[in-house]
Amino acid sequence: MSAARAAGPVVVALGGGHGLAATLRALRLMSDHLTAVVTVADDGGSSGRLRNELGVLPPGDLRMALSALCDDSEWGRTWSGLLQHRFTSAGGLDQHAVGNLLIVALWEQLGDTVAGLDWVGRLLNAQGRVLPMAAVPLAIEADVARLLPGPDGPVLTRRVVHGQSAVAVAQGTIEQIRIVPADPPACPEAIAAINDADWVVLGPGSWYTSVLPHLLVPELAAALHDTPARRCVTLNLSPEKDRETDGMSATAHLRVLHQHAPDLRVDAVIADPRAVEDVAPLEAAAAEMGARLLLRQVGTGDGTARHDPLRLAAAYRDVFDDFLGDVGTATR
Amino acid sequence: MSAARAAGPVVVALGGGHGLAATLRALRLMSDHLTAVVTVADDGGSSGRLRNELGVLPPGDLRMALSALCDDSEWGRTWSGLLQHRFTSAGGLDQHAVGNLLIVALWEQLGDTVAGLDWVGRLLNAQGRVLPMAAVPLAIEADVARLLPGPDGPVLTRRVVHGQSAVAVAQGTIEQIRIVPADPPACPEAIAAINDADWVVLGPGSWYTSVLPHLLVPELAAALHDTPARRCVTLNLSPEKDRETDGMSATAHLRVLHQHAPDLRVDAVIADPRAVEDVAPLEAAAAEMGARLLLRQVGTGDGTARHDPLRLAAAYRDVFDDFLGDVGTATR
Repeated sequence: MSAARAAGPVVVALGGGHGLAATLRALRLMSDHLTAVVTVADDGGSSGRLRNELGVLPPGDLRMALSALCDDSEWGRTWSGLLQHRFTSAGGLDQHAVGNLLIVALWEQLGDTVAGLDWVGRLLNAQGRVLPMAAVPLAIEADVARLLPGPDGPVLTRRVVHGQSAVAVAQGTIEQIRIVPADPPACPEAIAAINDADWVVLGPGSWYTSVLPHLLVPELAAALHDTPARRCVTLNLSPEKDRETDGMSATAHLRVLHQHAPDLRVDAVIADPRAVEDVAPLEAAAAEMGARLLLRQVGTGDGTARHDPLRLAAAYRDVFDDFLGDVGTATR
Repeated sequence: MSAARAAGPVVVALGGGHGLAATLRALRLMSDHLTAVVTVADDGGSSGRLRNELGVLPPGDLRMALSALCDDSEWGRTWSGLLQHRFTSAGGLDQHAVGNLLIVALWEQLGDTVAGLDWVGRLLNAQGRVLPMAAVPLAIEADVARLLPGPDGPVLTRRVVHGQSAVAVAQGTIEQIRIVPADPPACPEAIAAINDADWVVLGPGSWYTSVLPHLLVPELAAALHDTPARRCVTLNLSPEKDRETDGMSATAHLRVLHQHAPDLRVDAVIADPRAVEDVAPLEAAAAEMGARLLLRQVGTGDGTARHDPLRLAAAYRDVFDDFLGDVGTATR
């Protein structure tokens, strides 16, 4: 089906924050049928304050995804820039992102989450659609293990850390994450998009707080398991220093994903060779999920953990094309 | 010149708040060359808080004018509705109008007041341009006289009331208003619009706090005196109960205008017969400024002080057409 479309494959990208934005900036170069399914568990910053003050979904990750999809024109850049603009003051508006306020206001005015996001998309001439991964705000909870010094040597301690912003900077090793509520209503439009996709893309992004949560929303996880679409996992460029995946290798990232969704089949894994210490175990971990490993430079190469949109787009094209000749759902 | 334009006369409307919005909703039915020059002295509500917190022009009257000019389509109505939407919460966003936040954010992002307002105009497909009456925030100050009971009978007291929101509800009779600073920079685009207009329209609106302040900005007042455009004053439908013009007749409104701008020539005065107690003195007051009086039902007639856009538009057409045959600037 995708081959017949001049507009490129039908792609759903799951994630949140800067990682998802990087994926979207790449995918928009090669697909006109793009849907982002975005985490709604943020409880920090402007989003967390809006969530508390107005009882709404945290809008920040949705805003970033919309900005990443904005039309590359004076119009699109101006409104996208405005959405990302933050107030600076000694008062209540300090650090609120304008786009967060706009999205929340549209929700209140229209009484419809998806319609509100679609209107922001229309404002930006966004090249794709942005949807929430659940219809209600979520909390993330993590079991965190840590070795602490004791009288007879190091002692293994375990504690539960509540809230995405706390989990993201928790000291220790995350063993397991959960979402609260455990079975939130998914967004029906997101489920439909996943079922209709040629490709579903997970990552890059904060692994525990932006990538894995999608697999913990039961309806969404079921769709991700059952969709005829192919699945691609894009790994991060480097472990996030002093954050949730500090010290975790690329292979460990993949194993954690496998652990949180043991039955999920993956078709391709994209990794940047500079972010891979040892190829063999990564290849093996990929193979365990059914995936081929594609090693490509997708980073900017400037020492930051930022993906280069063109290189990442080319890597996605390599992956997607690689499966075009196969008998499979991607060519249905 | 105006007669040659299919798009109607070139009109500049001065004012603020609901009065200006009513004028704009009427004028947009008959002119594609419309500019609103809007008061920037508000110090109450959402606007006052933004002015204090961020050091910007109070955006509320500008927002209302933009909303009044919005395109009558699903697009225009949605964004106009969003601009007028107010948050309700127990926190810092309570009662902030979304449009106020949007306008202020555009000012911060673009670093240019007029460009920011023009971008909101583009968003709304606004049928006209909205400009501030001064380039800096203004304060309004009033001398208020009041009779208070004394031991030997009523005593005349005078006091100075500071700030638009205080002046608007001051007990007593306003004798004089001033702006602070007394000689603020005007908005060059507003001066140019007044010089290029066929008609300049003052009122309706809160007389002391939305209509007269324009005549106190020296540069703006000079343009209003010197423009080759004709001038029309539209009177209010009823005195504002418990507010700044409580008990003031239509004639008194006109005399106060004359007092604050003794040299201003006016060509036409529009009044609703239901708001006029005695026609002869009103006609005389109009004639003193050089104006003809046009009595027309321009209110909705439902007992409120709201103007009906169609009736007001028809009255403006009567006024403007009345001068078309004259040798004068309106037909230049």
